[in-house]
Amino acid sequence: MYIQKGDTLLFIGDSITDCGRRRPVGEGLHGALGEGYVALFHAMLEIHHPEQRCRVINMGCSGETSREVLSRWQTDVLALEPDVVVVMVGINDVWHAFNRPHQPQMHVQEAEFGQNLRTMAENSRGHVRKLVFASPYFIEPNRQEPMRRKMDCFGQRMREEAQRAGALFIDTQAAFDRLVPAWYHPSALAWDRVHPTQSGHLLLAETLARALCGDSGQES
Amino acid sequence: MYIQKGDTLLFIGDSITDCGRRRPVGEGLHGALGEGYVALFHAMLEIHHPEQRCRVINMGCSGETSREVLSRWQTDVLALEPDVVVVMVGINDVWHAFNRPHQPQMHVQEAEFGQNLRTMAENSRGHVRKLVFASPYFIEPNRQEPMRRKMDCFGQRMREEAQRAGALFIDTQAAFDRLVPAWYHPSALAWDRVHPTQSGHLLLAETLARALCGDSGQES
Amino acid sequence: MYIQKGDTLLFIGDSITDCGRRRPVGEGLHGALGEGYVALFHAMLEIHHPEQRCRVINMGCSGETSREVLSRWQTDVLALEPDVVVVMVGINDVWHAFNRPHQPQMHVQEAEFGQNLRTMAENSRGHVRKLVFASPYFIEPNRQEPMRRKMDCFGQRMREEAQRAGALFIDTQAAFDRLVPAWYHPSALAWDRVHPTQSGHLLLAETLARALCGDSGQES
Amino acid sequence: MYIQKGDTLLFIGDSITDCGRRRPVGEGLHGALGEGYVALFHAMLEIHHPEQRCRVINMGCSGETSREVLSRWQTDVLALEPDVVVVMVGINDVWHAFNRPHQPQMHVQEAEFGQNLRTMAENSRGHVRKLVFASPYFIEPNRQEPMRRKMDCFGQRMREEAQRAGALFIDTQAAFDRLVPAWYHPSALAWDRVHPTQSGHLLLAETLARALCGDSGQES
Amino acid sequence: MYIQKGDTLLFIGDSITDCGRRRPVGEGLHGALGEGYVALFHAMLEIHHPEQRCRVINMGCSGETSREVLSRWQTDVLALEPDVVVVMVGINDVWHAFNRPHQPQMHVQEAEFGQNLRTMAENSRGHVRKLVFASPYFIEPNRQEPMRRKMDCFGQRMREEAQRAGALFIDTQAAFDRLVPAWYHPSALAWDRVHPTQSGHLLLAETLARALCGDSGQES
Amino acid sequence: MYIQKGDTLLFIGDSITDCGRRRPVGEGLHGALGEGYVALFHAMLEIHHPEQRCRVINMGCSGETSREVLSRWQTDVLALEPDVVVVMVGINDVWHAFNRPHQPQMHVQEAEFGQNLRTMAENSRGHVRKLVFASPYFIEPNRQEPMRRKMDCFGQRMREEAQRAGALFIDTQAAFDRLVPAWYHPSALAWDRVHPTQSGHLLLAETLARALCGDSGQES
Amino acid sequence: MYIQKGDTLLFIGDSITDCGRRRPVGEGLHGALGEGYVALFHAMLEIHHPEQRCRVINMGCSGETSREVLSRWQTDVLALEPDVVVVMVGINDVWHAFNRPHQPQMHVQEAEFGQNLRTMAENSRGHVRKLVFASPYFIEPNRQEPMRRKMDCFGQRMREEAQRAGALFIDTQAAFDRLVPAWYHPSALAWDRVHPTQSGHLLLAETLARALCGDSGQES
Amino acid sequence: MYIQKGDTLLFIGDSITDCGRRRPVGEGLHGALGEGYVALFHAMLEIHHPEQRCRVINMGCSGETSREVLSRWQTDVLALEPDVVVVMVGINDVWHAFNRPHQPQMHVQEAEFGQNLRTMAENSRGHVRKLVFASPYFIEPNRQEPMRRKMDCFGQRMREEAQRAGALFIDTQAAFDRLVPAWYHPSALAWDRVHPTQSGHLLLAETLARALCGDSGQES
Repeated sequence: MYIQKGDTLLFIGDSITDCGRRRPVGEGLHGALGEGYVALFHAMLEIHHPEQRCRVINMGCSGETSREVLSRWQTDVLALEPDVVVVMVGINDVWHAFNRPHQPQMHVQEAEFGQNLRTMAENSRGHVRKLVFASPYFIEPNRQEPMRRKMDCFGQRMREEAQRAGALFIDTQAAFDRLVPAWYHPSALAWDRVHPTQSGHLLLAETLARALCGDSGQES
Repeated sequence: MYIQKGDTLLFIGDSITDCGRRRPVGEGLHGALGEGYVALFHAMLEIHHPEQRCRVINMGCSGETSREVLSRWQTDVLALEPDVVVVMVGINDVWHAFNRPHQPQMHVQEAEFGQNLRTMAENSRGHVRKLVFASPYFIEPNRQEPMRRKMDCFGQRMREEAQRAGALFIDTQAAFDRLVPAWYHPSALAWDRVHPTQSGHLLLAETLARALCGDSGQES
Repeated sequence: MYIQKGDTLLFIGDSITDCGRRRPVGEGLHGALGEGYVALFHAMLEIHHPEQRCRVINMGCSGETSREVLSRWQTDVLALEPDVVVVMVGINDVWHAFNRPHQPQMHVQEAEFGQNLRTMAENSRGHVRKLVFASPYFIEPNRQEPMRRKMDCFGQRMREEAQRAGALFIDTQAAFDRLVPAWYHPSALAWDRVHPTQSGHLLLAETLARALCGDSGQES
Repeated sequence: MYIQKGDTLLFIGDSITDCGRRRPVGEGLHGALGEGYVALFHAMLEIHHPEQRCRVINMGCSGETSREVLSRWQTDVLALEPDVVVVMVGINDVWHAFNRPHQPQMHVQEAEFGQNLRTMAENSRGHVRKLVFASPYFIEPNRQEPMRRKMDCFGQRMREEAQRAGALFIDTQAAFDRLVPAWYHPSALAWDRVHPTQSGHLLLAETLARALCGDSGQES
Repeated sequence: MYIQKGDTLLFIGDSITDCGRRRPVGEGLHGALGEGYVALFHAMLEIHHPEQRCRVINMGCSGETSREVLSRWQTDVLALEPDVVVVMVGINDVWHAFNRPHQPQMHVQEAEFGQNLRTMAENSRGHVRKLVFASPYFIEPNRQEPMRRKMDCFGQRMREEAQRAGALFIDTQAAFDRLVPAWYHPSALAWDRVHPTQSGHLLLAETLARALCGDSGQES
Repeated sequence: MYIQKGDTLLFIGDSITDCGRRRPVGEGLHGALGEGYVALFHAMLEIHHPEQRCRVINMGCSGETSREVLSRWQTDVLALEPDVVVVMVGINDVWHAFNRPHQPQMHVQEAEFGQNLRTMAENSRGHVRKLVFASPYFIEPNRQEPMRRKMDCFGQRMREEAQRAGALFIDTQAAFDRLVPAWYHPSALAWDRVHPTQSGHLLLAETLARALCGDSGQES
Repeated sequence: MYIQKGDTLLFIGDSITDCGRRRPVGEGLHGALGEGYVALFHAMLEIHHPEQRCRVINMGCSGETSREVLSRWQTDVLALEPDVVVVMVGINDVWHAFNRPHQPQMHVQEAEFGQNLRTMAENSRGHVRKLVFASPYFIEPNRQEPMRRKMDCFGQRMREEAQRAGALFIDTQAAFDRLVPAWYHPSALAWDRVHPTQSGHLLLAETLARALCGDSGQES
Repeated sequence: MYIQKGDTLLFIGDSITDCGRRRPVGEGLHGALGEGYVALFHAMLEIHHPEQRCRVINMGCSGETSREVLSRWQTDVLALEPDVVVVMVGINDVWHAFNRPHQPQMHVQEAEFGQNLRTMAENSRGHVRKLVFASPYFIEPNRQEPMRRKMDCFGQRMREEAQRAGALFIDTQAAFDRLVPAWYHPSALAWDRVHPTQSGHLLLAETLARALCGDSGQES
């Protein structure tokens, strides 16, 4: 159980996290947390752990790589004084190399990705009680497929940086791998293998809830 | 476990069920199931019971009482040949007597409510394998409050009709009562004590999943 | 009769006051006063006291507590040089503690509420001829209900601050208590027990007109 | 006091009555009664006479003359089985002759106006307990002005038809005449001397409430 | 003939002039001149005097009095270096005193109106070849009606200031007086006796064309 | 002077006539006549010939050729019982052969055009006092240009059909030819040499007014 | 060269064909052909083969399988009397089995797909000079991937049906296979491996132009 | 072949180039390149020359002349560090003199046009490897038509400036001249002889591709 009573949990990342959250700060009622896994995680927390009385803030921004997330670290993370920070980033770092092959200025290589994570961790020391790195994923069952292979490398690099920084690492790729291809074709969970249906967001939320709250994410 | 492989589950009810589902039939991707508990239930089913390969259809209509739901039974329920039908109805039967006190033509009394449920059950015999009655609720902790008291009567009547008809009864009021007032003021779960936040919808979905799927609604 | 010929009356408060008034200053024709009690009060004044030739300005802002209202006192009250200022505030101070229990930064406690009112009164001395405090209310008949109980405390605190400051105190809660539960369920006057129907706004406008104009609010 | 417990009051007329009421039937919450005098009358009834438990229905249609109102009498009045019917009509009968002088097919002459009212009354006999004719008006202080003069003729004709039919006659022109020109220029109450500001609608509502409810329209 | 080859004509005034002209500068194709008399005047100039090759600029702003027009004189008139400036202003100076009687801060008295015109003229000397004052009007046939009477005073004052400044005075009131009441009721030319129908705008455009171009405004 | 007191004038044609007129019948205030030459003609009639008290109806439909206009003759012309009918048609008959060269089903050849006009005239006999044929035009100064050449042929054919039928023929092409190329490039009057600017519409309206009203279209 | 002078070419299919074409018939200017390969094919035809003077009609409908296309054959194909018909269908037949696994009513199996094509061909005999079957595709380089494998089976079945019916078969899959994976990751040409970017649509249009026009699709 | 591997190609110009491109920089997926010839050129490059891996940026701005394009040279061209810059400009320089004859401040004469191009070339030296001037055009077959004649002069001037600066000159007018009038009337390719249909944009894109890529713009 990584969460303590009264904690402020802040989520930051790309479009998977953003999902239409409120600007400038995604907190509160009426869809302020967006329509994705952050809102579902928050609902689970409210229903299963009401005694924790945690705040949840969504600071995701569609389209961002680790480079942009890092550039917002002071204003969009530290300034809000969170106790726990969940960073789910890296998909765009990899994706842009494949779907915008001719725009190299938008590609983030693995070395820079690792360094960006390391700087986030260093900048958080003394300010954030628990840093959480949630892996990027690609809902592609063929592990030799080039984008999946590269995504796995980025995930592995994130795991190493988490270990080095004492951060918690959450393997979202593994969560999807349990369902695909055993039970589903990728297109059933995400039309572009990246942006999940509500089922995919629920899977992400449950994966995070299990890792952060140390239980099944449900009242027993 | 009331669900069988390949079942078609159809949900019908009022605005709590509707939540913006697609017309004329609420089935498929891209928000066709609406944004409420039906969509969340469907996501749970997809994630936790992929082997069941169930279809889920949402036929809720905002503002309806048991009277209107009954009037749509042939076209909106039986014609779609569901295996399992979940009816969550009764809130508007009660509510309209309180918030539109001078429009008696919109009020449904308990006797009619009971009769409407009974007719639904009779009309379903031989067509629907499992009928499910999900109780109306009012997120009001004071059980002597007039609208809560009347809602409890309607819930009790539904329980009796379920028993009489061999239908499954699900007590949604009890689910909310575990959280309110112990952990929350009603306004934290529903601004008008009726229409839930996403947390309230998640609670409804988990309650239904537990009752219908015979487990915690989560992969173990 | 607290109103004098040619007075400028300024109303400030939360969404009950705001009701879509014009920005930056809510004064003039074509809905500039919003669609709530301020516009109705203004219409009563125009119809029943045309000889007074009073200006009415609406400076309400949805969602605000006494903290935000106080922060706007210089720019949004004193700078407009009103003769009479009506402050209807406190609902959100209380409500946020119940409907956003995990966002403590948004809660205003009774002590701060009292202090905020006291500062408003002090800042108005010498600038405003008559300061009016209109109580917060909660359309809940059960006086032991926690949010009602807390609202009553805030109302009582406002009454004391009004007395201390020589301000006029108007008990809006009492106005609603005469109708609920004797004649209506709360949901008939406000879907969330806070935001009134037009009937509720008319009740507020008549209550204010009676208190400020010393008559029934109607030509005799 | 012309109103009895449980009465259904139906208002029919032109844009002054319509004011954006719901289609096909203007009854219920959320602006169904429009934004004009009917909604204000309803709010007065709810606040001052809750014990009457009356329904209020708005069937006004913008732009109509007595000719169109008569043509809807069966479907839009009698079919809804009202106890009291208030007809405020005639402004367009007169106005169109002045603002569309070259479209004679849109003009209704006084004889036809009288006959239309008479037919309404005859068709209502045995179906409606109390028929109310509310006069047309023109907010023009100069009684020799041609459109005002014609409007007065139509008002007088309506008064005679009311007397003949045993209907209640309400003189709305007199209500405006008490304020204009003594206290206001016409443009302060209606930009085109016809469509009132909210103050004008409040005046109409109070005039009707006084005539129908036999009191000042306010709790004493 | 006050117009010379290659002249830039600038029109400034209130909503009668504005009519939806483009911001920040109303010049060019595609509705840039608005939908009122300025656009019609421009069309007449293009059709009847193509040899003059004049530019036409519309700088009207809805709701303004002579006070606001004067405040824009440097930026919105002189900075655009017009040869001829047409000012049609004064209606709101008068109107606001009647339709917003309780907002004295919005009223402009005749003395200030005269002074505002005088300052416009003084500021134009040496910069503008021909200054044109087009009178305010009120389409009210009764010259004793208070707003008409006041409008006539303002018109007379404008005539005097024009004479003093050597400006051209155009009597728009007289143009309307030729049609009303002889041929039309005021409501046929302007629903509120101020904002003209297209016929009224055509009348204004022809009146200006005759005065400025010294002919009937049409090719012979 | 072809117009008599109390006449109803009906205009029918293509997008030049339509200009956003009201459906199903283009008559009345508030833009019902569209924003083109019909509305301007109506304004001229109201201003210069108020004593005629004529109705004006616009039944133009964008995109139509003489084929579609003919098909609407009974319902959209005769059924409205006009005294004078103005048909401005033929531009699309010609244009479609040039801008949609591969859609022959949309082309109307000269023979059919002539026959369509003849049938209109025959169908009008005994129903319409005066039929007016307004020529199609193409704002192209080079008379050898193929589309101009063909348009001139259609115009000549219309002139012959007018003569044969005793209809009034109005040469709109000649009106544009007086301005182009002497004073303007075609693009100054119509971006596509077909749809006029407001100046072009004014020219059309004046041309029609001169022909129909036998004067300059202006009060003398 | 399969196209003859004056031919009407009709394209029918799913969302790849539809691309926002006009309803009910997609033909003409202003985007009537949609924004996909049909419009580009039409532009190539206009630019490179103006002498052919062909009509192009787009009758695609998003979301359809061969089942729905067949059901529209009489009304949406034969009734328009095309000379050449291009059917690009089959993607949804396959896709729905993967992205909507629990909605079996939406799946079309290979046998039905083949039969649907055969019926289209039979129904076209004697009505259509040249029938063209354009293969479904899936922009997935791994030919063992289940959806690609199934798509290849459907493509092979279409090839056989084309041969049997004497129809022209166009292999769109082969066109994409030349670019992917040699030069692009699938996501660079279609975010979901199905709906192409403009580059993908250009590739389809050129592939069709080469097959139908027997040249490179460009002027030499 | 003027393009090298990894080049960044930047297009700048007026509405023909702009076509709704993204702001502030037109680069990337989802319509960022607009809907005109730039997007088609980019698609050709992606399909026919994937090995070049070029970036394409669209910096067109509707309505601009060479004067505005020059004023943006530093911020909108050089700052983006392109290797190849294509300037298609001049149409508005000429057009405004014809369609806005009375707004001389918007006209650009030939001398200024030539100087603007020269300054662009000088400012590019050392920063841009290859500068390309694409001629303005007017889809008017009559070369003596005044606007066509002037456009040809501007085209000739651009050709001379290109030669002087060592820039590549592309004659877009010649491309249209091959189709008009031989095969099409101007209105079939551009309703106003300036803004092309998609066929016209395809023609522009192919003309540029042939000139820049040294081949037919298609894979062989």
